[in-house]
Amino acid sequence: MSERSFQGIGVSRGIRRGKVCLFQHGTKPDAERKIQPREADAETDRFNRAAERAVREVEELIAKTAGKLKEEELSVIRGQKTILSDPAYCPEIRKLIREELLKPEKAVSQVTEKYAAIFENMQNSYMRERAADVRDAGNRLLGILTGADRSGLAAIDHPVILVADDLSPSDTVQLNRDFILAFATEKGGKTSHTSIFAKSLRIPAVVGLTGILEAVSDGEELILDGSEGICIAAPEPDTVAEYERKGEEERKKEELYLRSAQQDARTSDGKRIVVAANIGSYADAAGSSREGAEAVGLFRTEQVYLSRQSSPGEEIQFQEYKKIAECYSPREVIVRTLDIGGDKNVKYLGIASEANPFLGYRAIRLCLDRKELFQTQLRAILRASRYGKLAIMFPMIADYEELAAAKAMLEEAEEQLAKEGIPFDDRIKTGMMIEVPSAALMADVLAKEVDFFSVGTNDLVQYSLAVDRGNKQVSYLYDYCHPAVARLIRQTSEAAHANHIPIGMCGSMAGDPLAVPLLIGLGLDELSMALDSIAQVKYEIGRLAFESCRNLAETAVNCKSAREVRNLLLDFRSGVIRS
Amino acid sequence: MSERSFQGIGVSRGIRRGKVCLFQHGTKPDAERKIQPREADAETDRFNRAAERAVREVEELIAKTAGKLKEEELSVIRGQKTILSDPAYCPEIRKLIREELLKPEKAVSQVTEKYAAIFENMQNSYMRERAADVRDAGNRLLGILTGADRSGLAAIDHPVILVADDLSPSDTVQLNRDFILAFATEKGGKTSHTSIFAKSLRIPAVVGLTGILEAVSDGEELILDGSEGICIAAPEPDTVAEYERKGEEERKKEELYLRSAQQDARTSDGKRIVVAANIGSYADAAGSSREGAEAVGLFRTEQVYLSRQSSPGEEIQFQEYKKIAECYSPREVIVRTLDIGGDKNVKYLGIASEANPFLGYRAIRLCLDRKELFQTQLRAILRASRYGKLAIMFPMIADYEELAAAKAMLEEAEEQLAKEGIPFDDRIKTGMMIEVPSAALMADVLAKEVDFFSVGTNDLVQYSLAVDRGNKQVSYLYDYCHPAVARLIRQTSEAAHANHIPIGMCGSMAGDPLAVPLLIGLGLDELSMALDSIAQVKYEIGRLAFESCRNLAETAVNCKSAREVRNLLLDFRSGVIRS
Repeated sequence: MSERSFQGIGVSRGIRRGKVCLFQHGTKPDAERKIQPREADAETDRFNRAAERAVREVEELIAKTAGKLKEEELSVIRGQKTILSDPAYCPEIRKLIREELLKPEKAVSQVTEKYAAIFENMQNSYMRERAADVRDAGNRLLGILTGADRSGLAAIDHPVILVADDLSPSDTVQLNRDFILAFATEKGGKTSHTSIFAKSLRIPAVVGLTGILEAVSDGEELILDGSEGICIAAPEPDTVAEYERKGEEERKKEELYLRSAQQDARTSDGKRIVVAANIGSYADAAGSSREGAEAVGLFRTEQVYLSRQSSPGEEIQFQEYKKIAECYSPREVIVRTLDIGGDKNVKYLGIASEANPFLGYRAIRLCLDRKELFQTQLRAILRASRYGKLAIMFPMIADYEELAAAKAMLEEAEEQLAKEGIPFDDRIKTGMMIEVPSAALMADVLAKEVDFFSVGTNDLVQYSLAVDRGNKQVSYLYDYCHPAVARLIRQTSEAAHANHIPIGMCGSMAGDPLAVPLLIGLGLDELSMALDSIAQVKYEIGRLAFESCRNLAETAVNCKSAREVRNLLLDFRSGVIRS
Repeated sequence: MSERSFQGIGVSRGIRRGKVCLFQHGTKPDAERKIQPREADAETDRFNRAAERAVREVEELIAKTAGKLKEEELSVIRGQKTILSDPAYCPEIRKLIREELLKPEKAVSQVTEKYAAIFENMQNSYMRERAADVRDAGNRLLGILTGADRSGLAAIDHPVILVADDLSPSDTVQLNRDFILAFATEKGGKTSHTSIFAKSLRIPAVVGLTGILEAVSDGEELILDGSEGICIAAPEPDTVAEYERKGEEERKKEELYLRSAQQDARTSDGKRIVVAANIGSYADAAGSSREGAEAVGLFRTEQVYLSRQSSPGEEIQFQEYKKIAECYSPREVIVRTLDIGGDKNVKYLGIASEANPFLGYRAIRLCLDRKELFQTQLRAILRASRYGKLAIMFPMIADYEELAAAKAMLEEAEEQLAKEGIPFDDRIKTGMMIEVPSAALMADVLAKEVDFFSVGTNDLVQYSLAVDRGNKQVSYLYDYCHPAVARLIRQTSEAAHANHIPIGMCGSMAGDPLAVPLLIGLGLDELSMALDSIAQVKYEIGRLAFESCRNLAETAVNCKSAREVRNLLLDFRSGVIRS
């Protein structure tokens, strides 16, 4: 076969060349035949036994992998258990066996597909990815029912590029990771299991390669480029040479980056920029110092809430926050209070559906309304504050009165703890996110009320341009390089500095090497980002002169459009790279 | 009975005192008895005859009232016809008669309530109000089936305050308007039929008075205050005296206002402010010059689209725009191109449902994507432009590139017409709305590309504060007096004036007498508003000194919160009133 190339979504960078190992989930059961009414009892029993065994297997898996896996990985395995014990899922399968006389295999497939489709049709990308949990649970049941051999993955004993339809948590825990050069999957997006695994293991991966399973064959040679999201099957010698050169460059860069990772970031003319990590759990915190994070610019507390069936109490939260404070001490960890609602929801909070959730009842708005929920979290953070250096940050503050109300709640929590004789860091810093345009516009007023600002570009861009970036029909308008956004950031940083408080950024713009010179020029003191960007950003900062960043920013705020700013940044970057 | 007071929603101002005339729709039919299977044919026939007669009646009503009613009023009557010819409504009633053996009266009630409930549960207020169309159609069918006397309203021959559950178009067209002092209804909101009628006839009205039908009796004395949304039954002599005084004051004010209405608005120190009207149809245009509008600052073209089953062609639009251009000539009419999507939708455009429609595919975004739809409208506006003084305004422009694309489409339409030898005003002015924060932030760049700006506060506030004002859980945050909004407006007007173009406002803030001094101080040249605010705003402008408005604005942009600005404006207003 001649060279063929496939474009997907690169989710974990790195270039690898190797032999394809095709992996498809269990063969479809011959399940079309209906059962006889007299068989219904026996078949139901067979299904019940399979369901029990599936739950047992998942529990064993959880026990076996505890401590080895990150919270995200564990939570997707727990997702399977949730499905298996869902009050509708198994009963609906039993009903189809008894009433429609379907074979259990057929009933499982049918109900699984129905539930997966429900999840897939949800607007929220987090919920959409949960379709994989359902399929994972279904596949486990099918595997048990058909007695299929699911140990294929465990048997891999030489280096391969794994090409699959999708990879589930139970697939990946079986892998001998030493032999997996890269992943290429048909399904999945930036937040799918495969992506999370690949990133956390630093295995290059490309997802969303529709049709690749049919198009390549077992043992065929494949080049995978995780930065560009490309796979090339049966590459010509020229292609191989080109990618070897590219791979070599990347490896050299990675080495450079890793050298920068352990140093403080500073521009060539000596301006200090703090490079920090965005984390979601204790497992991330542990990883982030290895990656070179000098602080945590954003600890998202949502996960403590999202991974549970009911609201976590003060003690559970305190333990989680304490572990993180200790792990990071003496470096600072900015704890963002609950930012739920919008596209992140949890059932037990019973948030009503809204016509425009992004413009609705979320984050600080919800917390100021549900005082008990908020008070519990504030107490937990305060109690944890004496075990390290924590700071508190309020999300989605739209104006002065909201900030005042949030600060009053914090004071109340402090007074309560003091009265109860519970120790906490009474000099804990309080900051707010700048992610609503009105907050950026009023930054001079707000800067007098807080110890720091942190710009959240995702929402700030969304509201400033009136674009839901998840909406495919309009997402072309969403661009954090827009000059309107640069102007808002500049006016916010001027207000911060006039009031002698630092300003950071924790949106995804902060981790984009193209945007970093602009951000430094706009006056940001701290950039907080996903773990895998830290080393590179630190390296890039070292090559920049603060003065030229300032000139760049001055030109950018006078550009007409996002396109003009992007071109400007590209020109600037190639200038830096050449020099 | 002693004095009782009821709080509702004031939808048309004015104070009236008079006797209650209770009006309730036809008595409930004794319809619980099921029919016999052998009666099914005869009962179905009876229903079919009633349905035919209902359609005939509605058609007669449309013919009889054409020319007398405004487009809004006609379109709600057409709504009934739409329901009666809906592919599901009547067939579902027939099915209940045949299969469930319900009496036609019962079947009609049941299906009507089901459909009304579907509409009532919709998020969009326009769709919600459509529940009244369904009930209206149902009541008409019931009236025909039960032979009920629906002529009660026509028989009113002395002045009364009409107290009803709700009023439908077919009710109101029967009224002898000379005898109706005021309306008080249990149902309805600001956009319900009763509100539209009352406002257009200048009859004071209060809606949303839940329970009032049970609480007052026929012939009882009632005071209704349409400004405050209050009804007082069996008022004590003191109350009567108080409201007579209030009523007298209001009448005096109205006289003052009407005197100002026919003059150009100018501050006491000579600054000219153009006071214009927001209109939605030709009928409004005719009314607006009577009310003192010096121009049309916003002609919403949506209605031409919303009141139809399919997209209106170039000729239909041309005729509508031409009538308006002629009616207003030589005064300017700013025609806003289609602003659909968000909470305004029409079936035939097939817009997919969105997670956050306000941040989605709407207005200029939709038009730039559906080029034929947009081209048709631009051609129609251009063709109409030679019959008066039209200007074109693009809604929801987020940035330079969108504006450039819209202008390119306009140029294309002009070139087409020129090639076809069709005349149009080739000096037609082109402007844009400032309603997306990024547009206000980039006003200096955009001002170079257009002939005028018009600030749309409703959306600008919504996006700047990240608040859907229709969402009850967060609408407390929505306030156009927010200092962040004042800052955006000021920076936009400075950019406009630096580039020698005028800046107007067509959001609801422009018609609020409290906000007017601030807006003048922020530099607005034109205020465009609902018809019933024009006379008062013109009067108020005459009492203001431009210099003090400028000082007021300077103070307002330095306030901390919307509350502070509101207090400032209240103080300022009482100063003006005292002086």
